[in-house]
Amino acid sequence: MTDLSTLAINTIRTLSIDAVQKANSGHPGLPLGAAPMAYALWQHHLKHDPRAPQWFDRDRFVLSAGHGSMLLYALLHLTGYDVSLDDLKAFRQWGSKTPGHPEWHHTPGVEATTGPLGQGAANAVGMALAERFLAQLFNRPGHDIIDHYTYALVSDGDVMEGVAFEAASLAGHLGLGKLIYLYDANEITLDGPLSLIMSEDVGKRYEALGWHVLHVADGNHDLAGIDAAIRAAQAEKARPSMIVVRTTIGYGSPKKANTSSAHGSPLGDAEVAATKAALGWDPKAFFHVPADAAAHLGEAVGRGEAAHAAWREKLAAYKAAHPDLARDLERAFANELPPGWDGALPSFTAPVATRSASGKIMGALAQQIPWFVGGDADLGGSTKTIVAGGDYERTGLGRNLRFGVREHAMGSIMNGMLYHGGTRPFVATFFVFSDYMRPPVRLAALNQAPAIYVWTHDSIGLGEDGPTHQPVEHLMSLRAMPNLVTFRPADANETIAGWRVAMRRTHGPTALVLSRQDLPMIAPPGAPDAEKGAYVLADGADVLLIATGSEVSLALAARELLAKDGIAARVVSMPSWELFRAQPADYRDAVLPPGQRKRISVEAGATFGWREHIGDAGIAIGLDRFGASAPGEVLLEKFGITAQHVADAARSLR
Amino acid sequence: MTDLSTLAINTIRTLSIDAVQKANSGHPGLPLGAAPMAYALWQHHLKHDPRAPQWFDRDRFVLSAGHGSMLLYALLHLTGYDVSLDDLKAFRQWGSKTPGHPEWHHTPGVEATTGPLGQGAANAVGMALAERFLAQLFNRPGHDIIDHYTYALVSDGDVMEGVAFEAASLAGHLGLGKLIYLYDANEITLDGPLSLIMSEDVGKRYEALGWHVLHVADGNHDLAGIDAAIRAAQAEKARPSMIVVRTTIGYGSPKKANTSSAHGSPLGDAEVAATKAALGWDPKAFFHVPADAAAHLGEAVGRGEAAHAAWREKLAAYKAAHPDLARDLERAFANELPPGWDGALPSFTAPVATRSASGKIMGALAQQIPWFVGGDADLGGSTKTIVAGGDYERTGLGRNLRFGVREHAMGSIMNGMLYHGGTRPFVATFFVFSDYMRPPVRLAALNQAPAIYVWTHDSIGLGEDGPTHQPVEHLMSLRAMPNLVTFRPADANETIAGWRVAMRRTHGPTALVLSRQDLPMIAPPGAPDAEKGAYVLADGADVLLIATGSEVSLALAARELLAKDGIAARVVSMPSWELFRAQPADYRDAVLPPGQRKRISVEAGATFGWREHIGDAGIAIGLDRFGASAPGEVLLEKFGITAQHVADAARSLR
Repeated sequence: MTDLSTLAINTIRTLSIDAVQKANSGHPGLPLGAAPMAYALWQHHLKHDPRAPQWFDRDRFVLSAGHGSMLLYALLHLTGYDVSLDDLKAFRQWGSKTPGHPEWHHTPGVEATTGPLGQGAANAVGMALAERFLAQLFNRPGHDIIDHYTYALVSDGDVMEGVAFEAASLAGHLGLGKLIYLYDANEITLDGPLSLIMSEDVGKRYEALGWHVLHVADGNHDLAGIDAAIRAAQAEKARPSMIVVRTTIGYGSPKKANTSSAHGSPLGDAEVAATKAALGWDPKAFFHVPADAAAHLGEAVGRGEAAHAAWREKLAAYKAAHPDLARDLERAFANELPPGWDGALPSFTAPVATRSASGKIMGALAQQIPWFVGGDADLGGSTKTIVAGGDYERTGLGRNLRFGVREHAMGSIMNGMLYHGGTRPFVATFFVFSDYMRPPVRLAALNQAPAIYVWTHDSIGLGEDGPTHQPVEHLMSLRAMPNLVTFRPADANETIAGWRVAMRRTHGPTALVLSRQDLPMIAPPGAPDAEKGAYVLADGADVLLIATGSEVSLALAARELLAKDGIAARVVSMPSWELFRAQPADYRDAVLPPGQRKRISVEAGATFGWREHIGDAGIAIGLDRFGASAPGEVLLEKFGITAQHVADAARSLR
Repeated sequence: MTDLSTLAINTIRTLSIDAVQKANSGHPGLPLGAAPMAYALWQHHLKHDPRAPQWFDRDRFVLSAGHGSMLLYALLHLTGYDVSLDDLKAFRQWGSKTPGHPEWHHTPGVEATTGPLGQGAANAVGMALAERFLAQLFNRPGHDIIDHYTYALVSDGDVMEGVAFEAASLAGHLGLGKLIYLYDANEITLDGPLSLIMSEDVGKRYEALGWHVLHVADGNHDLAGIDAAIRAAQAEKARPSMIVVRTTIGYGSPKKANTSSAHGSPLGDAEVAATKAALGWDPKAFFHVPADAAAHLGEAVGRGEAAHAAWREKLAAYKAAHPDLARDLERAFANELPPGWDGALPSFTAPVATRSASGKIMGALAQQIPWFVGGDADLGGSTKTIVAGGDYERTGLGRNLRFGVREHAMGSIMNGMLYHGGTRPFVATFFVFSDYMRPPVRLAALNQAPAIYVWTHDSIGLGEDGPTHQPVEHLMSLRAMPNLVTFRPADANETIAGWRVAMRRTHGPTALVLSRQDLPMIAPPGAPDAEKGAYVLADGADVLLIATGSEVSLALAARELLAKDGIAARVVSMPSWELFRAQPADYRDAVLPPGQRKRISVEAGATFGWREHIGDAGIAIGLDRFGASAPGEVLLEKFGITAQHVADAARSLR
């Protein structure tokens, strides 16, 4: 290592341990150990423009081991992003740019929200996948307008997580050659040496998954080796690459290096000083950035501006040659819908399962929006989410992503696509398996990323597959999540409304919760009022029936029964609690008149939570137990989710 | 294959396709393809007593590919379990013994609830792990009272799931030599050929994870090869074994064999007939069991009774030699607590985090209950769940299971331990990562298995780690799940109550939701009333404050503030909604008087759902957004979760 590179690396290290120490909270060990590889990558390879963090052809860098956030914040500061030394000093404090774990769109230059392990590793797969899709969609001969690498720094903890396994398996299958992991193999985890919990050869495992695996034996010092490995990884086009870099956690700390005590706690004032001394640093200097290091790492600004300028010239040529494509490209990255995006939406007249209606709607969207791309977890035939345009394969990039039986990675890969920008992605599986992908759903919600989930087979109505496959608590458990919009349409027309909502949303994920079984047509064409979350479908002054999804037609049937007794029931279809809550109070009161206390909810799921809408006097009809295996109509009957039962309950309120 | 074995295999096959056809629902392809390996295992290796399915030293067999349930039901019927031909005819019907996917404790001989892919593969790891732990705990020289294999039939879909990867990695690390997978490699999934979604060499991957991998090239016919592979797997003691058995999905079906159309839909009447004809079966015979096949497979009864009788003799000798151990063994398998199990519980006086109190309580439980065993996902130092007695390692089986950063597998492995019986297991991680293990939590709830979850760092009170690590919606999302008891104690004494509840529960899982931060002591010693879910901690007639966990002391502080204004507040601590709901109405009304409409809830999480307890007129104080990175006390202040805010809200209700 040259003196300058050592100086730069030690600047990253000491900023990191100082910030952790000042916050008295954080993870000093990873920045100390991984600083050399991060330096090698950022100084010699990473294509980025710190003054224009949103340049869409930049290389992506994901710190999957998000607990080492100070490594990233130090790099961002030193390479010229809008992250000041004061920001570093405010590490982990209220309102700062430098939260405990990196948060997408919170800090300039942070490409992904990480911390929950394994997520970043999978996000990076999504980024590489999006890059390849968009390159095929938009590049033209002589115009490689999209052409960048995706790098992820992954840790021992990351590679242990199932989601990382799944994502790596898919990346290997698809041959994502522009995806490169730097694996910080320090062999220490929070609770002790890695040997306590893992003994496999991680490199061999990735080889078995179809990856190109390289090794750097001395990641603490061998910058040339790291550099050569990165070059070799870049040169390998057919397979994703993993560079196993053996490092020492807490490098430089006399007492804590290579131990778990360097992992998740500040080193302590004395050990910070001792570490600085060992690194040849002034033990009394805090947040010290030597001028030479600043100048050296600050070269990123000039390099970035030059690269970006060169690319802008390419873009200008592209615009001249392919003006329509260029306009679409900019729309795609701005997450804008093209004019006429909803011009081909189908209309429906006959009873149809909302999953099937959704499939037709998706076909129409795909026709109009070339960057509408997504897929399923080996249930495309059931979720009806396969659109025209072929499969996204190792060769020949269609728009149907076959994620395999890998629900968790599917969700995290979609997050990576959203982080990357340029595609409008969706993913699909059975609603009950939303549990398998709950961590990335939460991250999409936290990030307000416009993910779209198509979750079908949404209740005991699915029938014979039985309780393992029948959602009961899922709607409520997801309604409790901030920023997520759930939408459970009552028929095909409301399904159109749900898709309109999902497509228009630019902040926050949307879950479409769809039936396996056919549902009668009950809403007006396009069901525009459904976009308000709830609306009056049939009026009546005596009692109020509120229902969602497949139970709305049941509520209408109950209304008929009640009418025979001279009882007039209002039926409110409420596909989305969250959209309804966002309406003005006068609209909400018009739909659910405060004076009307005779309220009944009908939903084939947990009644938990319905008190919000039915009030103290209301009756909730639903299912507060797990389902069973039998035909769907038998189950609804056995569990009392019937028009008769609803009508009886309504009568009891008189 | 002999004629008899062919006959037996074809009996399994035709029963399976007949049942699927009669139900007009189900998966015929797997039973047709996997029947030979299942026959080879059950006829020549599986140690079991069909007339005593609960014999605790039986071999365990898990059909991880639960969608192929008819394979298992056919085997159970033919080998003499209490599963009749009529039960097979009632496949997937209301009230039958033969639901769509196998359900533990629902059908005699079903060892695990499977269907959600990957779960069974991980459950089997838990079974093998439990077997080894119990063998060490209870066996004595000359007395191998626990000594059996665990087999799992896994599919392409299973091995794609992250949970299966995680579990396999841990099984390889621990060297679980008595675990044997039969991998039904038919290379077809629901949506098409496996090559669409996976191209890795699965055997190589398992080798990289430390497994012993064997291959059978013709799993349709080579019974001797399967047999030899099983023997070789049994002989390998240091590593778990995977036998890759290449099969044909839908074997025998002229039109559908080796296609995905054989996977998840009935073959159709014509193709059922054609398949029977191709198998040399009478196309017009339905649910036909040839007498020779019945006699041949029925030999399992005699074999099982003999093996069981021999073991009973061993048990008698063991009882004579080690009466105390034998008594404990029987207690352990009956899931009874030993006398004095709570004799060493600590008492608390000083403020302490409920996670730390929990750690001390667990230490006391571990002392008294030798089969109390569990672990954490690389956060033992933070969850405080490491007890005395060393680690469960490849050699030397202590009682602390170091699951590694594998939360999903951790939950599924615990389910496997519960299915196996004999241990009283717990698992631990940060509460926010309960999302990673939600699928096995749901299965524990569905099965009413007495799992114990120790989930710490339960709110924004954890502070600097930020929103990725701060649970917000988790309490509510879990309260929506049937059969699960959540318990969020207010202090160390309520933590004792929570542990008492968890340990006494024999049906259904319990989640202990614990604080990172210190909490003052506010409940009486042992907090016996907390076991009722909610109780009056301090009385007052003017307003009702209901709080859980760390917010109970905050409600008490608000009560003090209100007292200064002459307002008398009742404070109800409500650690468990589910336990409270189960109380008689008069108790509930005594705690929450129906006439008292001035109610305020305080909980540092989503307010969604609180309307149930505070009614239409109440005010819910909580957090309906994601958290932020800052010290915990700063966050509580910024988000208005303060005594002052609670007092202000109470005044507003006057």
